[in-house]
Amino acid sequence: VELIPRPLIDALKGKRHRIPPVWLMRQAGRYLPEYRAIREQAGSFLNLCFTPDLAAEVTLQPLRRFDFDAAILFSDILVVPHALGQRVWFEEGEGPRLEPVADAAAVDRLAAAFPDGRLAPVYEAVGLVKTRLPPGVALIGFCGAPWTVATYMVAGGAAGAQGPARLFAYRDPEGFAALIDRLVDASAVHLVRQFEAGADAVQLFDTWAGVLGPGEFDRWVSEPSGRVVEAVRRELGDVPVIGFPRGAGTQIPSYLSQVPVNGIGLDWTVDPTFARRSVQRDTAIQGNLDPLALLAGGAPLDRAVDQVLEAFADRPFIFNLGHGIMPDTPIAHVERMLARVRTA
Amino acid sequence: VELIPRPLIDALKGKRHRIPPVWLMRQAGRYLPEYRAIREQAGSFLNLCFTPDLAAEVTLQPLRRFDFDAAILFSDILVVPHALGQRVWFEEGEGPRLEPVADAAAVDRLAAAFPDGRLAPVYEAVGLVKTRLPPGVALIGFCGAPWTVATYMVAGGAAGAQGPARLFAYRDPEGFAALIDRLVDASAVHLVRQFEAGADAVQLFDTWAGVLGPGEFDRWVSEPSGRVVEAVRRELGDVPVIGFPRGAGTQIPSYLSQVPVNGIGLDWTVDPTFARRSVQRDTAIQGNLDPLALLAGGAPLDRAVDQVLEAFADRPFIFNLGHGIMPDTPIAHVERMLARVRTA
Repeated sequence: VELIPRPLIDALKGKRHRIPPVWLMRQAGRYLPEYRAIREQAGSFLNLCFTPDLAAEVTLQPLRRFDFDAAILFSDILVVPHALGQRVWFEEGEGPRLEPVADAAAVDRLAAAFPDGRLAPVYEAVGLVKTRLPPGVALIGFCGAPWTVATYMVAGGAAGAQGPARLFAYRDPEGFAALIDRLVDASAVHLVRQFEAGADAVQLFDTWAGVLGPGEFDRWVSEPSGRVVEAVRRELGDVPVIGFPRGAGTQIPSYLSQVPVNGIGLDWTVDPTFARRSVQRDTAIQGNLDPLALLAGGAPLDRAVDQVLEAFADRPFIFNLGHGIMPDTPIAHVERMLARVRTA
Repeated sequence: VELIPRPLIDALKGKRHRIPPVWLMRQAGRYLPEYRAIREQAGSFLNLCFTPDLAAEVTLQPLRRFDFDAAILFSDILVVPHALGQRVWFEEGEGPRLEPVADAAAVDRLAAAFPDGRLAPVYEAVGLVKTRLPPGVALIGFCGAPWTVATYMVAGGAAGAQGPARLFAYRDPEGFAALIDRLVDASAVHLVRQFEAGADAVQLFDTWAGVLGPGEFDRWVSEPSGRVVEAVRRELGDVPVIGFPRGAGTQIPSYLSQVPVNGIGLDWTVDPTFARRSVQRDTAIQGNLDPLALLAGGAPLDRAVDQVLEAFADRPFIFNLGHGIMPDTPIAHVERMLARVRTA
């Protein structure tokens, strides 16, 4: 018996709200002083991800300040390659580093079956958050989509990382497909475990979906992402899934035709007219405020918020940014944005 | 009396060819050993741009190896801010650096009327190339579109340069509009001078068009680019112009409705079905082979070439890359690509 409404889950089931549910990508993060304090205490970034109490605490921090409709687990998409046996580390101020998986032989050396036991602390964090969340607030789990995780695994880092994976895919499509296949299996297990631990929905982050031409997009983004969602649903039935193929632009229709998501995250560059035409009425749209409008604040922020609200007022919709919140965003701007969404 | 056909210009006038005209963005560049030799001889990069004989020679180099249908002037989009009085320099292996134009006061300090005399060596290079080009080969001049040039001017460099300009535009739209206005005037004069010196067509490079949401895209990309083209046409009549709004994706229709171009360059991520639907039949499409397919070579390259040819076979079309050629591209791959296009 569910008495308390959960607007985010309802939107993912196709419900339209007069005032849409809200959460922000990277809402647990560096723009919060309380996050920076725990981050320092934790030592390494991976240690923060793998200490359930700390990961849960960081996940809950934004909810104490803002009445968001969802928490998103604090974790990282690179815990999956880490579990598969790739060396992953984070250098201060430099972002993630990985020992590159540069060829088919390196793919073969990865764990064949996903060793989900290595990620037990992540699922434990999910459980802790679940018991501590305010009622009505949904808990979102996540993983990186196979393509985006593969770009980091092949390049050994994040900055300008797409070239090496794209070249690998052109030069040795079978070898690259073996990597993608392994990530499909691993991602599905990782999402299932998060649902089992208490996640109410999951998001598939495909940060680098936008760097591929149509043929490659279908093969490395849409088809594998579709397989992840189908594998999760085979285990768990019809659980809510959000896809976020950042930069997919003109390829959004192709994505939606192959990935059976309940919601699609739009980055801030997507023309809303195009989005409204391309996304079926029963699929929730999520997004797509420009993170720089939130950073800028003031009247430009108000205008940008209003434009997003107006564009998607007549359909199932989740208000969010079009990419993660910038670390130097003032907290007062988040409060202003929330007030504007809630009183629109 | 024009006896020799010029396929590129004809395509821009709406003619369909069974075998399309071909050129490559950055075809004069680091993948050619003869370019690297002259680049070393020239000392600084700007010295190469501002020495007419060397700039002309470098422009002509790719034409000696490949029977492209066009030469594109060797120059740089940052010669415009340089002429406007901004300090621009190139650090070895680091790309361009500029003294940032960070606020409205800095915009005011730029030259009000475009001092085109400072770019006389560029126009002289155009004239030299013109006299030395094989018959039938078109000479393309260019400039950066106001938005993209502004991103570099505001950030003071190229890498991750879009944030500062986007924030400037949100926080002080009038101040930013003053910068854009100055660039509209400067770009129009710069293009007119290139036409007067012998250019047969020009291309407006908008490398960072893709980072803006719809409202900002219209205001900072489409509207100013449209004004540049109109100003050039007021001086010279109906001269051929190609627009290249990289990453514009779903906003291509909006771009085309405001920028009266004869051809539109598509980056490699644009879905051809979308492009065919969005671009009027009398506007040439230019593009959009993935530069990484050219770098990869072999059967994947052949397949990628065929896909591009098939997608745009029935309309005015110019074969090109979807972005500049990568510096480590083997020359044999360019030859293979050309042979495939010419015998298709």
